[in-house]
This record gives sequence, C-alpha cells and structure tokens, in this order.
Amino acid sequence: MVNVPPPAFDDAFRHALADLVAWRRDVRRFRKSAVDRTLVERLVELACLAPSVGNSQPWRFVTVDAPERRQAIIENFRTCNRDALAAYDGERAQLYARLKLEGLETAPVHIAALCDESTAQGHGLGQRTMPETLRYSTVTAVHTLWLAARAHGLGVGWVSILDPAGIGRTLATPPTWSFIAYLCLGWPEENHLDPELQRAGWQNRVDGNGRLIQR
Amino acid sequence: MVNVPPPAFDDAFRHALADLVAWRRDVRRFRKSAVDRTLVERLVELACLAPSVGNSQPWRFVTVDAPERRQAIIENFRTCNRDALAAYDGERAQLYARLKLEGLETAPVHIAALCDESTAQGHGLGQRTMPETLRYSTVTAVHTLWLAARAHGLGVGWVSILDPAGIGRTLATPPTWSFIAYLCLGWPEENHLDPELQRAGWQNRVDGNGRLIQR
Repeated sequence: MVNVPPPAFDDAFRHALADLVAWRRDVRRFRKSAVDRTLVERLVELACLAPSVGNSQPWRFVTVDAPERRQAIIENFRTCNRDALAAYDGERAQLYARLKLEGLETAPVHIAALCDESTAQGHGLGQRTMPETLRYSTVTAVHTLWLAARAHGLGVGWVSILDPAGIGRTLATPPTWSFIAYLCLGWPEENHLDPELQRAGWQNRVDGNGRLIQR
Repeated sequence: MVNVPPPAFDDAFRHALADLVAWRRDVRRFRKSAVDRTLVERLVELACLAPSVGNSQPWRFVTVDAPERRQAIIENFRTCNRDALAAYDGERAQLYARLKLEGLETAPVHIAALCDESTAQGHGLGQRTMPETLRYSTVTAVHTLWLAARAHGLGVGWVSILDPAGIGRTLATPPTWSFIAYLCLGWPEENHLDPELQRAGWQNRVDGNGRLIQR
C-alpha cells in the first residue's frame, strides 16, 4: 500500500467528534422499535477496524436473539444485582435499589462481546508481558461500535452486573473465549448530556481526573 | 439536566467517522516536531469523557517528560523485546527482528495510561463480578484519545512490550495504579490505510472476524 494522504479532518468534524464523545451515553431506556439488521452488521464491521495487539483481532461478537437465552441473561443479571445490593448499607443501599442499571427487557438488540484468548492471529506479538492486551483490544472494538451506534442516533448500554461463567454457558461459547461486555442496543427513549449515574446522585463527574500528571 | 435533543449527526459526519476509524493506525514513525501542550491537554480532557463502570473515571494519564525516565522506558522495552524475539523460531524470528514495534526515541510526547484500582469513585458499582471493567474503562479512555488525536492529524502508537512493574517503578506511581498502556504521540512520518503489521507480512486483516455470530 502506497503512502497516500489520509482524509483531511477539519474543525467542523473535530467539533462533531467532540460532541459525539460527550453525547455517547450508557443507555438503559430503549424504545421497542426494531433496529435494522444490516445497520447492526455495519456497526460490527466498523468495530472490527479497532486497534488490536499484534493485529490479532480477537473480538467475537455474538447477537443474542433466542428468547430463552435472553431470559437466562436477565436471570443472571437479577441474581448478580441482588448480591450487589446486599453489599451496600443504609442510604447507599436505598439509592442503589432505585437505580436503573440495564435495559435488557426492552432493548431490541443484544450483543455479547467476547475475546478469543486462543487465537493464533497476531502470533502472540505484544502479549508476552501483557496478555491482558488481547482483552483490551476487544474493549476498543466495543467502544468503536458504541461511538458508531451513537452517530446513527442509537443508544448502547454496557451491562457488567453479570456472572461471566454463566454467560459462557448460556451462549455456548468456546471455553477459550473470555466474556468482555454485554451490550444492549436500540433507539433511546430520551437523550442526555450528563451520565445517568450523575442524574441519579450516585457519582458525579470529577474534573481533576482529566489533569495530566507530569513525570 | 433536561431531556434535550442531542446534536444531529448526518451522513457526512458518519462517513468521516468511518474514515477516522479506518485511518487510525498504530504509528511508530514520528517526525520530531513538537506537539503543542495545550492540544495534548485537550485530547486528555476529551478522553476523560469516555465511558467508565459506575462512572468511576479510574483513568490516570501521566506524561513522561524527564529524559532519564524516557531512557528507562526504552531500556524496559529493549529487555522485553529481546525476550520476545527469543521465543520465536526460524523465519518468524527473522521477521520479528525486522519489525518496527515502537517510536519511543522519536515521539515528542509520551503518555502512560494507568488505572486507579483503589478509587472510591463509582462506589464499586458494576465491578463486583467483573472487577476488570475498571481497567476496561481506562482502555476506552485511551481509545478516545487515540481517535481524537487522529482527527488532528496526530499519530498514536500503543507499546505493550513492556514490564508493567518496571513502568510503575520508573514513573513512581502509587502501587494501586495498574499500568494499562504506554502511548507514543506525535506527527506521523507517513500515513497508511493498512496496518503496519500487515505491510510487514506479520498478520493480515481477517474478514471473517467481523461476522456476527447468532445465538
């Protein structure tokens, strides 16, 4: 491939990209309207252009369509969420109990993202001292899908209150595939610039985290 | 915050976003020209709008400016890379030895991304069954920075052939901060649509990985 000039990204694009990053949200309230399958496939294709260690492309995307499988995922969440609630006390527990933490029952599209830890692709490059970079590569693919979905007006919610071993059993995925993320995808009921957990009084944005530390 | 309409992203933006994703590259060949500090700070600020489990915002970005620290990082890489090379045989070893795997000596900006595993932010939400989501949150921030940098014409290279414990010692970061990524940032010497590891004959893109698996 010759050394060709890349597309010129201008100020208007950079502003829109900053808006996209700011307006990406973890969405848990979905309209029931369907999402075109071709669009979902296009988003996954774009996600597969994400960076990966050694160009290993270890991501595996599984759509969960079977109602009995979706029900098993919902049960998985309920059990984990009950345990999570039990670990909080007092006001924090009351607040936790009121949080809306997933949109599993209404989201028209469910996608599980897994990481094939046994892939020969990439020939192990870059993984020797940091094998976790294989999973990190899958995370960059998930994040790419998330941003691309938002650019289409779609909302994505990442559910992590789940038992990963149970997900593997429910989806009958190979034992060498690590579960990374469970994504609910659909048209959002509402749009917000601030995170849901901030509106709910759980955790505000912390400005100081954006400070560069110098060494 | 009221329920306000988000910015309207149009087809032109979506195409440019797809170009950005396609043209993001892992860059290892940098021009020596400086990068404005204000721009780097803006990229880090945008990165801090990435999703995070429980809104925990666990990312910590450290610029590595001191020459003796940069030298220690380079030594760290050399040792790990020597060990990595020793693990390959025959033609694969010869190919590995020829690869350009980092731009540590020329990149004007070095940024280490770490994850504060002890943060109280987020109050543990979403981490009980999947504590790794704290580190995954930091990865989404790194990826946001990467895309935003590319939109400015900047190249980013993620170096993972490093001993994480050594990085912690070199940067004198708290023991509760996990090392996630070491980023070289600067103006790229050249631009390519295909990954460097593909051009070098190490690992091609694999189309089948973009297929949605149905369950």
